[in-house]
Order: sequence, then C-alpha cells, then structure tokens
Amino acid sequence: MLNLTTHHRTHTCGELSHADINKEVTLCGWVQRVRDKGGMLWIDVRDRYGVIQIVLEESSTEINCMQNAKSLGREYVIKVTGVVKERMSKNPKMKTGDIEIIPTTIEVLNPSQVPPFTIEDNTDGGDNLRMKYRYLDIRRNPVKHNLEFRHNVSHQIRNYMDEQNFVEVETPVLIKSTPEGARDFIVPSRVNPGEFYALPQSPQTFKQLLMVAGLDRYYQIVKCFRDEDLRADRQPEFTQLDCEMSFVTQQDILQTFSGLVKHLFKNIKGIEISEIPLMTYQEAMHSYGSDKPDLRFDMKLVDLTTQLKGKGFLVFDSAEWIGGICAKGCAIYTRKQIDELIEFVKKPQIGAGGLVYVRYNSDGTVKSSVDKFYTEDELKKVTELFKAAPGDLLLILCGKEKHTRKCLNELRLEMGNRLGLRKSDEYKPVWIIDFPLLEWNEEEKRFYAMHHPFTSPKTEDIPLLDSQPEKVRAIAHDLVINGTEIGGGSIRIHQKELQEKIFHVLGFTKEEANEKFGFLMNAFEFGAPPHGGIAFGFDRWVALLCGSETIRDFIAFPKNNAGRDVMIDSPSPLPDVQLKELGISIQKNNT
Amino acid sequence: MLNLTTHHRTHTCGELSHADINKEVTLCGWVQRVRDKGGMLWIDVRDRYGVIQIVLEESSTEINCMQNAKSLGREYVIKVTGVVKERMSKNPKMKTGDIEIIPTTIEVLNPSQVPPFTIEDNTDGGDNLRMKYRYLDIRRNPVKHNLEFRHNVSHQIRNYMDEQNFVEVETPVLIKSTPEGARDFIVPSRVNPGEFYALPQSPQTFKQLLMVAGLDRYYQIVKCFRDEDLRADRQPEFTQLDCEMSFVTQQDILQTFSGLVKHLFKNIKGIEISEIPLMTYQEAMHSYGSDKPDLRFDMKLVDLTTQLKGKGFLVFDSAEWIGGICAKGCAIYTRKQIDELIEFVKKPQIGAGGLVYVRYNSDGTVKSSVDKFYTEDELKKVTELFKAAPGDLLLILCGKEKHTRKCLNELRLEMGNRLGLRKSDEYKPVWIIDFPLLEWNEEEKRFYAMHHPFTSPKTEDIPLLDSQPEKVRAIAHDLVINGTEIGGGSIRIHQKELQEKIFHVLGFTKEEANEKFGFLMNAFEFGAPPHGGIAFGFDRWVALLCGSETIRDFIAFPKNNAGRDVMIDSPSPLPDVQLKELGISIQKNNT
Repeated sequence: MLNLTTHHRTHTCGELSHADINKEVTLCGWVQRVRDKGGMLWIDVRDRYGVIQIVLEESSTEINCMQNAKSLGREYVIKVTGVVKERMSKNPKMKTGDIEIIPTTIEVLNPSQVPPFTIEDNTDGGDNLRMKYRYLDIRRNPVKHNLEFRHNVSHQIRNYMDEQNFVEVETPVLIKSTPEGARDFIVPSRVNPGEFYALPQSPQTFKQLLMVAGLDRYYQIVKCFRDEDLRADRQPEFTQLDCEMSFVTQQDILQTFSGLVKHLFKNIKGIEISEIPLMTYQEAMHSYGSDKPDLRFDMKLVDLTTQLKGKGFLVFDSAEWIGGICAKGCAIYTRKQIDELIEFVKKPQIGAGGLVYVRYNSDGTVKSSVDKFYTEDELKKVTELFKAAPGDLLLILCGKEKHTRKCLNELRLEMGNRLGLRKSDEYKPVWIIDFPLLEWNEEEKRFYAMHHPFTSPKTEDIPLLDSQPEKVRAIAHDLVINGTEIGGGSIRIHQKELQEKIFHVLGFTKEEANEKFGFLMNAFEFGAPPHGGIAFGFDRWVALLCGSETIRDFIAFPKNNAGRDVMIDSPSPLPDVQLKELGISIQKNNT
Repeated sequence: MLNLTTHHRTHTCGELSHADINKEVTLCGWVQRVRDKGGMLWIDVRDRYGVIQIVLEESSTEINCMQNAKSLGREYVIKVTGVVKERMSKNPKMKTGDIEIIPTTIEVLNPSQVPPFTIEDNTDGGDNLRMKYRYLDIRRNPVKHNLEFRHNVSHQIRNYMDEQNFVEVETPVLIKSTPEGARDFIVPSRVNPGEFYALPQSPQTFKQLLMVAGLDRYYQIVKCFRDEDLRADRQPEFTQLDCEMSFVTQQDILQTFSGLVKHLFKNIKGIEISEIPLMTYQEAMHSYGSDKPDLRFDMKLVDLTTQLKGKGFLVFDSAEWIGGICAKGCAIYTRKQIDELIEFVKKPQIGAGGLVYVRYNSDGTVKSSVDKFYTEDELKKVTELFKAAPGDLLLILCGKEKHTRKCLNELRLEMGNRLGLRKSDEYKPVWIIDFPLLEWNEEEKRFYAMHHPFTSPKTEDIPLLDSQPEKVRAIAHDLVINGTEIGGGSIRIHQKELQEKIFHVLGFTKEEANEKFGFLMNAFEFGAPPHGGIAFGFDRWVALLCGSETIRDFIAFPKNNAGRDVMIDSPSPLPDVQLKELGISIQKNNT
C-alpha cells in the first residue's frame, strides 16, 4: 500500500551451507578479520548467528568492491551482496566452513574505531575495560552464549511452571520499606512529599497475599533488590524465581520442585536426575560441617573426640571437639603437600589453629604428626573409625565444635578439588530440611528468623517457642546442588495467632509488627489457606547449569563490586532542582 | 526416606465430574455459601478451579461433621473428605453441577471474619474498599480471570517471540537519571553518598546497546516507571513489551509485529486478523482528526471550508476551517438528541464553540440550523461532498483547523458509540507511520522529540532539519487498535553525527548530550548496526484483548490515582536513622 524500503539482508551469517551454493545473497554483520595477501583478500563477517568468509580477488572483483574491502577495519558494520560458492579448502571448524561468498558489492553501514580489546573468545581485555564497554564484550561468543543460555533457562522454567498450572503474576516494585535483615533501597515520592516507596528484597508478602487471594499456584521470574555492602559476586539487583502454593504440605512443594530440577537438567543439559534425597540440617552439619554439602563425593566428617582426648596431647586434651576427614589415597602426600594443607586451614578465612595428620601407609603401618602421644594401636583404631584403607590420609582438626566442623567442611572441599572429586559435569542435588527456626544474634541479643519471620515452626516444636526457642525447627527447605544453595523456602504461618507469637519471639512490639506487617496480619483474618513455597536465585541457577560460579557473567549489564554501572556511570549526582522537586536534600558529611 | 506429612487434598474443587462418582475425595477451599434448611445443609466450596456442592443430612451425617458444618461462616477455609455422588437435581450452570459430595469429615483450616464485601461476580464493594482488601477482591472470578488472562497473553507473546528467534534479556532497573519528557523515580545510593540511581522509564538505551552488542533480536516483558502527575488509569509502574531488531527496515519491523498481533488474536481470541493496513500520520489527522483512529467504522472528516465560507454566515466566514462528519440514518434525531450533541462538543474537554447540523431527510429534502444563509441547492452540494444518503445527518464544526479536527474526532467517536459502531468483539488494527519527528513546545520555545530523541528522520527529510525542522518526518510507527494506541516505535539513529545533530536541534548543548547519553554516543563509534524496534503497553494490550478499557483491572496490586497502594499503605514515612544512613534528609516546606 505505502512504499517502504526493502529488507537489508536475505540471510544471516550463520545459516548458509552447501545447499545454498550459487545463490545470490545479501548479508550484514561485523568485520571480524581481514587478511590481505596482495592479489587476494579474505574478510570474515560475523553476526549473532555465525561467521562467514568473503573472498575477493584482484583479477576478478569489481574495483569499487575491492577498494571498499581494503578500507575495512575490525568491527566495521558492512553489507555484502554476492554469490555463495564452494570453498576449495574447507574449514571443518566453522559452521559455514564449506562455503564462501564471492561479493559483487560491499557497503560500509557504519565504520568503527579500533575496539579497546579483541572481540574473540579469548580476549585481551581486563575485567574493568570489558565492563565499561559491555556492549563490545557481549559481541564475544562466550558472553553472548551466556545470555542466550539464560533465556533458554527461563523459557524452560516457564514451560514447566505453566504445565503445572502455576500463574505468573507480576507483583509491585514500588512497595513499602520493611527491612528485616538486609537494607531496602528506597524511592522518594514526589506526589506524597516526605514519604517513600521501597524496592522489594523479595515478593514474599505479596505472594502470601496471592495465596490468601485464592490464586493457589503462583510464580514469577522477578527482579529483587538488596542494599548490601557488596561482596564479590553479589549484585544490588538480582533475579529470583519466586513460587508459592496453597493447600500443600512440604512434601508437595519438594515433589513439585524436584520435578522442576529434573525438567531443567533434562531439557537444558540432557542429564537425567534421579530422586533428590532429603537431609536434615542436623545431619548436614554433622556429616559435612555445612548446610550446603557438596554430595559429589563422600569424605564425611568423623568425630574423634572420645578416641583422641586424654592421651596427654595438650592441644587435643584442651579442645572441645576433635574431628577429621579421610582423604583416599593421599598417604603418599609429600611434606610440602601437607604443609600446603596446614597453611590452607590456618588462613584467616578458615581460621583453624593447625592440622594433625595420620598417614595410613600402603604397607599397613600408621604414621602421624602426633606419634609421641598415641600408640600405633590407638591410631589404628582411629583409622577404623574412618573405615580407612591402606594408602589413605587422615586430616584432623580440633577446637570449638561448631567452628571446627566448619573448618573441616572447607578442608573437605579443598581435598575434593585436589582429588578431582568435584566434577564439573556431575550434579548432586539435595534438599536440606528441618532448619532451626531462629538464630541468636549475640551483638543485638535477640533472635532473628533464620529464613524469614513468616516461616512455620514444626507443629511438634511449637511448645518449645517459650522455653527453648533455639531448639525449634522450621518446616523449611533449601535446595543445594554441588555445595551451592540454589533456592530456599518453607511452609508459611497462615494463622494470625502463631504469626503474632513469632513476631513476639523476634522481639517486635505489637505496634512494630502492626506497622510493618499489619496488612498481612489483617489478611490472615479473612481465611488464609495453609501455604508454602520456595524462591530460587535465578542468576545463580543459570550460572550453575552453565558450569560457572560467577553470576555476573550471566547478567547483561551487571554492576561492579561497588554497586556501580561503569558503562553508564551510575549512580551519579543529580541537579538540585530535581532533588528539590522530590523534597529531599543531601546531608553533608553524613551528620 | 524422611517422614513428611501427606498431602492436604486429593482433588481441586473444579475438576470432579460424573466420572468420579463413588470416589472418596478430599477437597480444600473457601466457604462460598451455606444454606441451612433444618434437616438438610448445603455448602458451596470454592477454590481457584471451581465450586462444588457439599450436602449434609441430619439423619445420615456424623454428628461431629454436622456440627462443624453448622459453625461455618462465609470465607472459612475448610477441608472436606467425602464421597462423590450424582445429584438428584442437576445444575447445568455449574461445571460440577452433575455431582455433589457427601462428607464424612469437615475440618476448619482457618476461620474468617465476615468479608467487607461479598465475594461474588457482582460485588457490593466500592472501588476503594476493594483496593484496600485487594486479596479478597482477587478471590472474585472476574478479577482472578483477568490475572489468568494476563498470564496467558504473556505466555503467547513469549511463544511468538521465541519462535521468531528473539532473545529475552533483562536490562537493569537501577540505572541513571536522564529525564527527557516525564520525570524519573530516583533511588539514593548508600554506598556512594550523594549519588542516585534512577528507575527506567523504558529500557530504550539498553536495548539499543544490545543491538550494538550484536544480539540482533531482543525482547523483554519489563516493568517501567514514570513519575507523572497521575491521571485516571495511569500507573507509576507499568509493564512494557519491549523489542528491538538489527539490520531491519521499517517494513521488517511492521511485518514481524503484524505477525505478533495476528498470533495473539488467533491464539487468545480465536480471531483471524487480515493484513494490517498502513496509514500516514497526515492521512490519519486529515480523515479522522486523530493519530489513533478507530477504524471499526468509516465516518471520515470532510473539509467544507471552500463550500461554506463566504455565504454571509459570520461564524463560518470568520473561521479558519470548517468540516464535518456524516451520521448515517440520524436525520430522524430529535431536537433533544441534537442538543445533547451540541452540549457534548461544548464540554470543556472538547471545547468546540457550537455545532451546525444538516438533516438530509428521507424524503430528499434538506433542513439545517443555518437555512438562513444557505440555499437548499448549496446544502445539497454539501451532502454530496459527504456522499450522504437520504436519512443521514451532517454534523459540522468550525474554528482553527487543528483544534476543529480534534473536536470532530471526539464527535465521531461519540457518534460511533451512539450508533453501536464500536463493537466490542471487532478489532481493527492499523499502523500509523510518518509521524513528525519534532513537536514545538510553545512554553519552553524549543522542540521536543515526538517519540524520543533516538528516532531516525526519514532520509529524504534530513536536509530540512536546519531549515524547517517541524516538517521533518520520522521513520516511526504506532500500532493503533480500535482507537487505542497499543505500541509505538521507530527506526533508530545509528550514526553518531546524525544523533549529535538531533540533540543539537533539541537544544541540548554538547556537554548536556554527553552527560546524559555519552555512553550511547560512544557505543555508536564502535560499529552500531542499523536498528529499530517497538514497545507495547502490555497492561493496555491485555485490557484491550479482554475487552476492557481499565488497565488497573489487569494489575494484581495496582496503585490508586494518587500513586498510593492503599492495601500496604505505601508510600510511607521512614525513620530518620534510615534516611541518615542514606545521607539524605527531607526538606521541610519544600524550600
């Protein structure tokens, strides 16, 4: 009807093959590489879908076309029209390696400055430079693939959730500040001067309200915000897969989301995951010294306190607890290797006082760093506690029980790495359950909710809320894969009285509880169903599925460790007039 | 492995049917209604999936069960175990109307206060009350269906976009303030005192950077934020379907998103949409007095200036422009009906000075309110200009051309309503193109970008940028359906020089342009491809597809017209300590 310009290209750079030989095509893309050998000239052109080779020959190519080709620099944007030909020497490493394009015209759509780093799979650009020019970094295959991979994961998540009859509901981003734990980001309201919205740390209360609203099964892939002092690989804004279900027991939740785990591994990785085991928090802490055990290898913690105490070795005798792990086949470790382990456990991040080792030599003899204090028989008995075999090495720590177990967890993971037991293509998910409901904060002399204040205690533990609150277990669950926590949730409290009781135990006055969560408590008076759910760290999950540990690599425009977007230079100062309009001012010197 | 409680329910309330007769089932839900007729008692139980009837008989039901049933109030949450039986008198209006449940136990999972309004399709609750108790409002079928409908639309959008090889990429929410048009919401940074993030009004610059990054096809269903003085049915946070493509002409974009429109109408409404027509901005303004024409009916504007001027009727003679519309079959309108129309056009929101009518009576005679000044022949000629038939009514306005055309647009829509021509089950999409690039702001004596400053002018109009900027047309496109703008976009500028030129025309100094958009200008130096895209108002689109005009009905937790969430009472004041930590303070009296 009306005259519009015709299309730019007939094909993308990745899709041509043997089948297209002799076709005339028009392609657009970036100049990856130009090789000029006098009479011959090769150009690799790249777009999102692949790379294709253009070949020009002085003797046969139009002079204009040749001149244009010779003017090209890296990352120039060009439009090439030409004919697909079979290559003389094929390149089996390239998807389009069977063919090349003999061009008739080459048009420069946009020139490019020389990029500050090479746009190759392995680049010479440092982290900071690549962050500043993130739009160039994304041109590199590994980064582009990560973003496509992320899209694929969210696509597969939605497939599963939709199939399971969950409704995706968008909850608001401008909500109310109710910090409990981390700090909220806040947003001044111009229309309501002196008042503020807050950005959600999670949609927790809204998803519970959706259950009160009868939506039965809710999910959302949603941005959340936490104003934390940033640590490595934490982002002030991050994405969560947030889920909630009504009329469910913990069993229903674990079953539903075990299904999701299986679905993702199958559809993303082609891996069949068998039944996901359950482990209590107590068992996890006991056997692994961690509520995030890496189950790709065994090497459980063994309690040696009874066995090793009271034999005159002062360090052990004065310790609250002694325990160790058995490193299979490591009796041959050199002094140097053992010194490395001693150094490892003494690092401030680990904080053990030292390390005692027992070599169970392959000839059956036992040799330790504490031979002075223990007979060979006594040490043999220790090896039996580990069910150790000749050739194994026992690594023993002592001190306060809780701390020592944590140190042993770190040592166990380190030995797992050294022994290659933490295989990147093996996945061992586990549900950790029966967490303590409360954690004591020694500084503030009050209890905090270990998950959040809406977590239901186990029915049989409710009587302990008054007498021994620290012993109360929660109907909570964490999904841990390969030592990484991927998600966590719980059955929620749905009865007003119990929720009030918990707020009380957490040290809220009635007024405070009402001020912060009044709307939720009110909602509970109008027929709240039993409900529960889970939230997953989506960025973390994507990274794990892709075999990486850095979530930043899977975020299109991440912030650095100072919470700064160095590409757009944000945050940034604002003109006074804008602040004035919002009715706020900056406090100088923070006083 | 570990002992977990078993499931709450065996079925949901909506899924049982004739096939389940004699099964023992356990159901959970809310008490919709209790009818107590002495010896017999009926309970309707409701969950997300439906309603089912429970029947108790004094003579046969367990006494405990009967007592529990008699204690129930509206919206109590209950768990019922019983046997499915065929109903004596079936209810064809209910999905489960063939059956009922004879209960053996009824357990109250949670009681409920009497809800502040009835949880029925037609409720007695006013707007404000329903907003405050939104979690109860969502229990009502119409609201619940709207949320499920919204989910279905986003699901179908993703299906189409994924199929078309678009990658969904999440762009950041904490960005940089670059207001141009509407105001930004801002977020103080605690870690960087005195500095602020802003919430995005749209991911515009990020999606353009993703094109520079080579992602080729991007989309996102994403929350956007605009700190506007709120009007009816505007929300400070709203959802956008945001899309961008590289190496495309406008034709490619329109083709791709015509496909999306067809896909949605087919898969959501079962309606086949034929080719979507194009209309220039000029033609739309000329024929309909609006760039959002409702094409469900014809009734085009007709220019009568030449015909009616200079015949001694002072009002017309002194007017810049005279024009009218033809209302088919309305010659029989009574004086009262015509007075209503006169009142309508004189309303301050419309602002016409008056209305002249010409009746083309069915006997062929012509009668008008200006018979004094025009002969019957002259008026007959006017009817010919409209191609009017006997029985039609001509409605004529005059004044400044632009204003009068706008008034005629309103009158046209009003007549469309009166004549039932705006059918709720008919959909007439149209692409409006060739918008002016710039709009003159009389107050500020400067040009503003009509869409946004990144819109490309038509190549042939670029020379006019210096001489007659107001005449420059943009390569822009709006999707209009039934008179509602659903989306808009453009081909973007991808060359630094042209972008600088436009910033100059918009009155930015080089420093301002650099301060605000330096990162985008820089990106343009490293091989930006030709690109363009579109963004759709997702809330608006969902509402339109569902035959509604109120976006608030399709948002789970909307804010009111003062930007307030009355359910959670936000925005709200913050404790001084929290503001102090952020390094900001409230300015009293806004001075």
